Amino acid sequence: MALLERAQQLAAQGHDVIHLEVGEPDFETPAPVLEAIAAATRDRGTGYTPAAGLPALRQAIADDYRERFAANVSPAQIVVTPGASGALQLALAALINPGDGVLLSDPGYPCNRQFVNLVGGKPQPLVLKADNHFTLTASELLGAWQPDTRLAMVASPDNPTGNMLSLDTLQAMAEGAVQQGGLLLVDEIYQGLCYRGPAQSVLSRTDQVLVINSFSKYFCMTGWRLGWLVAPEPLVPAIERLAQNLFLAPSTPAQYGALAALQEPSLTILEQRHQLFARRRQCLLNGLAHLKLPVVSKADGAFYVYVDVSDWTNDSFAFCADLLEKEKVAMTPGLDFGDGHDHHRYVRLAYTCAESRLVDALHRLGHYLESL
Amino acid sequence: MALLERAQQLAAQGHDVIHLEVGEPDFETPAPVLEAIAAATRDRGTGYTPAAGLPALRQAIADDYRERFAANVSPAQIVVTPGASGALQLALAALINPGDGVLLSDPGYPCNRQFVNLVGGKPQPLVLKADNHFTLTASELLGAWQPDTRLAMVASPDNPTGNMLSLDTLQAMAEGAVQQGGLLLVDEIYQGLCYRGPAQSVLSRTDQVLVINSFSKYFCMTGWRLGWLVAPEPLVPAIERLAQNLFLAPSTPAQYGALAALQEPSLTILEQRHQLFARRRQCLLNGLAHLKLPVVSKADGAFYVYVDVSDWTNDSFAFCADLLEKEKVAMTPGLDFGDGHDHHRYVRLAYTCAESRLVDALHRLGHYLESL
Repeated sequence: MALLERAQQLAAQGHDVIHLEVGEPDFETPAPVLEAIAAATRDRGTGYTPAAGLPALRQAIADDYRERFAANVSPAQIVVTPGASGALQLALAALINPGDGVLLSDPGYPCNRQFVNLVGGKPQPLVLKADNHFTLTASELLGAWQPDTRLAMVASPDNPTGNMLSLDTLQAMAEGAVQQGGLLLVDEIYQGLCYRGPAQSVLSRTDQVLVINSFSKYFCMTGWRLGWLVAPEPLVPAIERLAQNLFLAPSTPAQYGALAALQEPSLTILEQRHQLFARRRQCLLNGLAHLKLPVVSKADGAFYVYVDVSDWTNDSFAFCADLLEKEKVAMTPGLDFGDGHDHHRYVRLAYTCAESRLVDALHRLGHYLESL
Repeated sequence: MALLERAQQLAAQGHDVIHLEVGEPDFETPAPVLEAIAAATRDRGTGYTPAAGLPALRQAIADDYRERFAANVSPAQIVVTPGASGALQLALAALINPGDGVLLSDPGYPCNRQFVNLVGGKPQPLVLKADNHFTLTASELLGAWQPDTRLAMVASPDNPTGNMLSLDTLQAMAEGAVQQGGLLLVDEIYQGLCYRGPAQSVLSRTDQVLVINSFSKYFCMTGWRLGWLVAPEPLVPAIERLAQNLFLAPSTPAQYGALAALQEPSLTILEQRHQLFARRRQCLLNGLAHLKLPVVSKADGAFYVYVDVSDWTNDSFAFCADLLEKEKVAMTPGLDFGDGHDHHRYVRLAYTCAESRLVDALHRLGHYLESL
């Protein structure tokens, strides 16, 4: 956060900062989505929807699972939420009692730990290994299961590594968790942003799993704050009551926008953007290879690569701070993603800016490395 | 909730249900607000804002406190949230540790108890007295303070009673809470909807208090889900970190709308609506007096009256259910607002529909009473 503030400060002072630290697509909400929101606001008003979301949107999400992911999900399993943040909160509040353990990967999404703490749960870090690209196997996950573990949280595609888990791995994790009397939660908020195979969902393999998702990333609707949770049907009544009490309802205009985002012509626009992300990714991987900076993760999804800078520094935070001051390139140090995984060796780069900017950033980075 | 569902079911079947159960203004988001949202979405994009909200909106809220409420609030004390629900959650998460006591009035807003439970707090019900119109005095509140009480929650204007607390009372409560080593939280989400004096805020008397507020009620922006929290400045850094982790940020388009809602021409539109609420309130009070149904609360704010139906029933839930089936008028039974206050004697009526509909509802209610 200190680096993010400094990057914004430098930009405000007129410096040409290249932002490789931003976990948000640089693409605007698609125009057909904005048009649908304006029309719905005018024609249908902006009053509260049901706590679990518009029935038509729950149905549309279920249809999308069937059509794009070959997953059979009932609308009754879907609860629309204020961002994936709201979905995470509902899942944890519904499932975790004080003292319950929750397995969290390190490196991983930094807010997960806070959601666990909020409901009195006990984070149980699962430190991933660099020599396996920071990917997680089902046997590692299930081997780390403790008697008090109630939930394990994984992400595919993952932040900060961009790694994806295979459907076989996810299925084994989900089934193993259930055998232990617990559940697996899969963060699929970067679903659709994948570069080595088709988009996928664990829900095509099992419904004994919690899935969170979002309209922020693939659908480019960050500021509208809309996500959803898929849960095994017996859990849904309790989750709906929690949603009613904690949120009242998700944003009404955003829900009408989401209905349009799941249809043409939005889907074509989004797929074009997906292809641009793929080109940026290749550009970044090529440039990093040229600079002899190893990408330690597989980086086959999301819009992140996790890079080993330990040939150049023993403190990736100081490296990021110095690079920002001298070359005006902002990156995120490994420390932000957990303190158990040799974080001082790593930095996260996000390719959420145009390819020409990535090329500039690589030049500046090369110039910086020469100066060391 | 069962009655709400039944009312919606009957309406869907084509029955002309009059909804006196809805806690949501029937007025649409003001047109200038919608225009501002469309323009900002086009010109400024819909990316994330800072976690505590747009600096310009925090400043505009601070300005509004100074201009309309003679309250000196710094923008640094204001955190913009996903609805007042988000503000409640931040306040409780920042202040309450597991086992801490929280004083809650009964009758009161039913979700408060769930927010307390979420963070492991202990609800401490404060049962109000009908013979004092269900209003609360400072000495009652402070007399109920327990050694483990950390927070007391009150609302002015209040749901379900419509009662308002005087600034002297609120100041005495806030100061007494601080003397006990705790804090007072004042729910001001119906601020501006008052009928016997000017709108007010506890913040004109003290800044040692937590205040939650919302753009849903007075500003008629329910479905946009935007509210805010005002906190003593030393608490704000922790609250901002929580907001960052739990919500990332409030809705960007809603925030641009809120900027317009706090200015002309929106304020004139909202003040006209306020006058319509005042007329509806008088219509309802006159009609209830004519039917000899005592309004037990003072009902000088919000859009609620709390009515004693014990001359006609010893079960207000059954009364509401029967009235809905026979006369298609929906009301909320006292049970929804707490189980400690002789709830079976009371019903809440919301004047969130046009005056002509209120007149119809009163006719139907009279017809029903005659049939008993």
